[in-house]
Amino acid sequence: MVTGANRGIGLGLVQHFLEYDAIEILIATCRNPEKAEELNKLKGDKRLHIIAMDVDDDESIKKVFEEVSELVSSNGLNVLINNAGILLPYEVDGQICRKTMLKQLETNSVSVAIVTQTFLGLLKKASSNVSGEDVRIDRAAIINISSTMASIEKNDGCFSGPMTAYRMSKSALNSFSRQSYMELSKYNILVVSFCPGWVRTDMGGENADIDVNESTRTLSANILRLDSRNNGLYFDRFLHPIPN
Amino acid sequence: MVTGANRGIGLGLVQHFLEYDAIEILIATCRNPEKAEELNKLKGDKRLHIIAMDVDDDESIKKVFEEVSELVSSNGLNVLINNAGILLPYEVDGQICRKTMLKQLETNSVSVAIVTQTFLGLLKKASSNVSGEDVRIDRAAIINISSTMASIEKNDGCFSGPMTAYRMSKSALNSFSRQSYMELSKYNILVVSFCPGWVRTDMGGENADIDVNESTRTLSANILRLDSRNNGLYFDRFLHPIPN
Repeated sequence: MVTGANRGIGLGLVQHFLEYDAIEILIATCRNPEKAEELNKLKGDKRLHIIAMDVDDDESIKKVFEEVSELVSSNGLNVLINNAGILLPYEVDGQICRKTMLKQLETNSVSVAIVTQTFLGLLKKASSNVSGEDVRIDRAAIINISSTMASIEKNDGCFSGPMTAYRMSKSALNSFSRQSYMELSKYNILVVSFCPGWVRTDMGGENADIDVNESTRTLSANILRLDSRNNGLYFDRFLHPIPN
Repeated sequence: MVTGANRGIGLGLVQHFLEYDAIEILIATCRNPEKAEELNKLKGDKRLHIIAMDVDDDESIKKVFEEVSELVSSNGLNVLINNAGILLPYEVDGQICRKTMLKQLETNSVSVAIVTQTFLGLLKKASSNVSGEDVRIDRAAIINISSTMASIEKNDGCFSGPMTAYRMSKSALNSFSRQSYMELSKYNILVVSFCPGWVRTDMGGENADIDVNESTRTLSANILRLDSRNNGLYFDRFLHPIPN
């Protein structure tokens, strides 16, 4: 299951995941599926299920949980990819707006937590279908799409621009990832954070380093390779660790 | 100016700062000064000004800004210590509550940003009264009282307990600190984050390592020692760096 799958990284991941025959069901969520033209073009593949979900809305999340529960049944959910996110420009030395900052933190960190918690039962179910203590992507995993902007250590001013609130939201997300790893290890659920790179998306802008295909080809391949050695950590798309 | 000064670390800092003759004005804020018995006992010292402020309320912050502006006049504000914070228990593998998580992130990170931005003009004024490029605590500084719980690297499960949302809020705070350092360097404003230690306060609980006096004696002394070598970093109370 991939959230925010209508465009950018989310859409790219869905496109690449459909190339893997081992994936039996792929659930793609976004706020407005009827407007998701590119995503709808993939509908020919019967493994793909497109479902409307607003990650900022508890009722919407609960509704999708019911739908997905029915879809995956006793198999549970193997992989939750929390990709949905927003970027709201904000500067310390700029306009003051509590509402903007709260919205940025809500969508990129709090809503990820709520989605994860809501689907946790299905991840536990998938994990419990496998015996032993192995932790692997094809057992049960939570993948959080973060950003190098989450890294406080790497904030040396090189990415300038009004990223204050975005950075805070992604640092909070990484904190959630790490704590999820700690709490969910006993269920053999893998938790990993990724930076997909600086990508030419609506969010990344046209000056970014790479295109969506280049980012998500590498990212999807490395997501499907994850095991216990990667658990609890924060990587770039090449699986190189990033310091927090 | 110290926020959340009615008890715990905030109160301890105020008590110790009053021991320093070089401090001419000390502004202590808290939500309900009329209930702040310990803080009110210090009123004999005419340098101390106790002012009501709710960091979650923009109107309250603005009102205090007017009051402090009048008090400090053309000197501006030298040091803002963002200490006010809350701890709301939250577990990934527990109850789902968006409201709790949002409140935790708001008070400990968003409100710190709003207070800092509101008082930024007074910090700039203080800085501009000094010539040259020196960065020092007695010129202009923002001190954010964080926690070792902000550290994602150090989250190895050793502090168990329902700290998910608290950790996220303090990681977001450290991210804000670092970004503030980047944006405010041009004004020669110092920005530092501290963990005061695990302290026997209402928040820290009775099993904590040290008492408030022990924590804030060291912390206050080291705050008053800060200069450019410490700028942008995150320390324990002994001025040892903590990895993010």
